[in-house]
Amino acid sequence: MEQLEWLGFTAGFFSMIAFIPQVYKTYKIKSAEGISIQTFIIYTISTILWTTYGFLFGKPAIYITNIVMLIISSTQIVLKIKYDRADKLAQKQRRYK
Amino acid sequence: MEQLEWLGFTAGFFSMIAFIPQVYKTYKIKSAEGISIQTFIIYTISTILWTTYGFLFGKPAIYITNIVMLIISSTQIVLKIKYDRADKLAQKQRRYK
Repeated sequence: MEQLEWLGFTAGFFSMIAFIPQVYKTYKIKSAEGISIQTFIIYTISTILWTTYGFLFGKPAIYITNIVMLIISSTQIVLKIKYDRADKLAQKQRRYK
Repeated sequence: MEQLEWLGFTAGFFSMIAFIPQVYKTYKIKSAEGISIQTFIIYTISTILWTTYGFLFGKPAIYITNIVMLIISSTQIVLKIKYDRADKLAQKQRRYK
């Protein structure tokens, strides 16, 4: 069955690259207003658990994918916090003008 | 090792519920402007591949999770198309007023 691990790597490849357009879009428009931070926090927790699962079952397709996704979804969280803070600050400044 | 499948189910549970806050937020604000449709298309493809992988390796934690995520991420795509269309229409109407 191990030869089917390529399928896992293909699936993992798609999972890995999936959030790149989202991170790029958020970065480009410098706003994460419509993004749910809860989604990315829960998702990050899931990648940690899947990484552990992949290690325990000896499935590199699972743990390699999830380590990469952990990095990408953490980046999305950082961008969300950063741009939401900038938005709030800009709103405050407009209010006191 | 099969008793460790509960870890997969826990990981799967977090993956499954992760996108619910995002879909809910998009639905609530009636806008998916900051959402990348590419992300959700690639993600949907990955859930189809992971479902196949889960079936072939007999890992219900993987395929059950991915079937649910397939449904949720498809919903996000439908909402993205719907609200982007409504946004474009509203912009056009403002232009011709």
